[in-house]
Amino acid sequence: MPELFQVVTIAEASARLQTYLSPLARVEQVDLHAALDRVLAAPLYAPTDLPAFPRSTMDGFAVRAADTYDASESLPAYLHLVGEIAMGRQADLVVGPGQAARIHTGAMLPPGADAVVMVEYTQTLDATTLEVVRSAAVGEHIIAIGDDVRSGQVIFPQGHRLRPQDLGGLAGLGLTSVPLVARPRVAILASGDEVVPADQTPGPGQVRDINSYTLAALVQRYGGEPLLIGIAPDEAATLQHMAHAAFAQADLLIVSAGSSVSTRDMAAEIIASLGTPGILVHGVAIQPGKPTIIAFAEGRPIFGLPGNPVSTMVTFELFVAPTLLQLQATPPHPPRTTPARLTKNIASKTGREDLVPVRLLQREAEAWAEPVFGKSNLIYTMIRADGLVRVPLDQSGLYAGDHVLIHMFT
Amino acid sequence: MPELFQVVTIAEASARLQTYLSPLARVEQVDLHAALDRVLAAPLYAPTDLPAFPRSTMDGFAVRAADTYDASESLPAYLHLVGEIAMGRQADLVVGPGQAARIHTGAMLPPGADAVVMVEYTQTLDATTLEVVRSAAVGEHIIAIGDDVRSGQVIFPQGHRLRPQDLGGLAGLGLTSVPLVARPRVAILASGDEVVPADQTPGPGQVRDINSYTLAALVQRYGGEPLLIGIAPDEAATLQHMAHAAFAQADLLIVSAGSSVSTRDMAAEIIASLGTPGILVHGVAIQPGKPTIIAFAEGRPIFGLPGNPVSTMVTFELFVAPTLLQLQATPPHPPRTTPARLTKNIASKTGREDLVPVRLLQREAEAWAEPVFGKSNLIYTMIRADGLVRVPLDQSGLYAGDHVLIHMFT
Repeated sequence: MPELFQVVTIAEASARLQTYLSPLARVEQVDLHAALDRVLAAPLYAPTDLPAFPRSTMDGFAVRAADTYDASESLPAYLHLVGEIAMGRQADLVVGPGQAARIHTGAMLPPGADAVVMVEYTQTLDATTLEVVRSAAVGEHIIAIGDDVRSGQVIFPQGHRLRPQDLGGLAGLGLTSVPLVARPRVAILASGDEVVPADQTPGPGQVRDINSYTLAALVQRYGGEPLLIGIAPDEAATLQHMAHAAFAQADLLIVSAGSSVSTRDMAAEIIASLGTPGILVHGVAIQPGKPTIIAFAEGRPIFGLPGNPVSTMVTFELFVAPTLLQLQATPPHPPRTTPARLTKNIASKTGREDLVPVRLLQREAEAWAEPVFGKSNLIYTMIRADGLVRVPLDQSGLYAGDHVLIHMFT
Repeated sequence: MPELFQVVTIAEASARLQTYLSPLARVEQVDLHAALDRVLAAPLYAPTDLPAFPRSTMDGFAVRAADTYDASESLPAYLHLVGEIAMGRQADLVVGPGQAARIHTGAMLPPGADAVVMVEYTQTLDATTLEVVRSAAVGEHIIAIGDDVRSGQVIFPQGHRLRPQDLGGLAGLGLTSVPLVARPRVAILASGDEVVPADQTPGPGQVRDINSYTLAALVQRYGGEPLLIGIAPDEAATLQHMAHAAFAQADLLIVSAGSSVSTRDMAAEIIASLGTPGILVHGVAIQPGKPTIIAFAEGRPIFGLPGNPVSTMVTFELFVAPTLLQLQATPPHPPRTTPARLTKNIASKTGREDLVPVRLLQREAEAWAEPVFGKSNLIYTMIRADGLVRVPLDQSGLYAGDHVLIHMFT
């Protein structure tokens, strides 16, 4: 009763997935306050100049630079004070030759002025006479119209993920609602006769549903919206019905398959029945996670992930996470890796890639990766770990003391 | 008219803040599905063993290991098949000496059995006769009661931030609701006569509110709940009224101060009026961000951040972000840094620390940091950047080609 599928490498599995994957076309107009970490569905252009008027960057006096030429402590320039620029108003006076106006940081530079002298280099001798002891250059302590952004300029490309400063920059231009790529709707269907909802008390032989929680959190982590479908029994008709209903409302379907061969075969048949082209990958040369299924139907991806909690997480990170990012038309996250040395040997086999949970330790100012060995049924091996170490396809293991890169959990 | 305050170093400012800072005592009981990235208010203990019964990790046959002793292809062991263990049920048979029972991955090991033989190493000769061609060790392909977690064991310490696998591990134990540290409520009060809400069209001399958006997003980033109070005018009575009302409903108050010296002084007076001990820091030896105010009143922190958008972000990251994490009793995030070489000189002054936005470039397989120069009024300098480079207090600058660490934006 060997499993009847042909395992492929991670690279080959990813390549087959790529062939069919394209970004979601669904766009939402979203308020800026709800847009953090969301992805732009279109390039954005500046609708106005920022700033829209020349502004002082200092507290001081708006002047004509030429009037301060060569001014110094020993030979000050004397200017005629014509008033003060109020904050948040049109500058309602003109600075003529030999004149100056008091100005505050952020206020509009009055017409005629072309520089600001800092208050530290001035003295007001009387209500209308200003002494200036340092020369100002044209444009000094001023930001000109469009210095921040010019009207019409592309400010963000399509696919840009919005950071805190980006929201500020959009607010500054009045773009308080932005077109975003819809969050992919990810239906999560658990399965298994032995699995009960986590808030129920399991009977003899039963276990609580772990994967719905882990998967929902991972989906959120990568920008998707989890739809929890529930737990299907190991019975073809019901599983088929639930899978079809889930797929109908989702951009991506994850079936957390049963763990035995017979139920996995059932899941594969049902996934194949969802549409064409159907199953692209059935088995990947990895440990854990070998029985992974990757399929496409009606332009939408379907993943059959092995039901063991560790396998579920590992295969999600390898295949579902990059898919979610591509559905959002955003480049893959740069992997968060950190170098360390292995504390123990890790055995593997050539021809498969091992992903081993490790805990990060600090010893004598050096980072060490301590393998957290344990079967893929044990979710707490992932909880005790800080990341994963990958043993490459062509190696039969890694040795204590080896320098490795840890793929850190986020 | 010099500014009347005594600047202190970042380290000194942080140390003063530490003196008064303690975690929020407010605890919320939260559904597990809403707990991702939240922080535990108490240590959690396993209420049961996981698994609660011995389970098979393979498809095969439950046996007594002793009955397979020395079994091989040439000298198989023959066992009497007594039935099959159903998934999700009490194992309703006993495996006696010389007997075996069919079992699936995840099913309960029946009494009497102490090992599982993989299906690959067996052959069913007839309905009741099993041939076994490999010996099994006691405990092989079994996870025992409590192998994942033992009842009573501490599973997470207080202050732990919940990751996807942690939610799975809690679900597995039936802990579907958990005690979390309340999200700090952070009141954000913008100010300035020139500032209008971002969705309004600014009149002459007016600008849109940038900082409320940037700050709200940063507060979310660090686990807080932003309360947007709005924009106060540069008028003492109104600002005072709004600041008091905001502080009354918040765990932390941020006043995004006006940019001119006079309005900053006004903000300082109002912050001082909120309670004792009042202002701890008024001025930090950094560029940008020098006029930062740090205060405490009634056990709660208050920050007066300079109004320039870049200064606002930089001082938030330096002082408010670690405060938010400490209010949640969680250790500081490990800084996300990446090494690079500077493309250009950066001038600074000894006695102050400069924080310069840089863009990360890849050139000939080496990472380079390109300074994005620009005044702290220009939010787009932060948008064009990927992180900040810090020029230490005791250096008068950095040179093109220097190896630096970039503090990456998240």
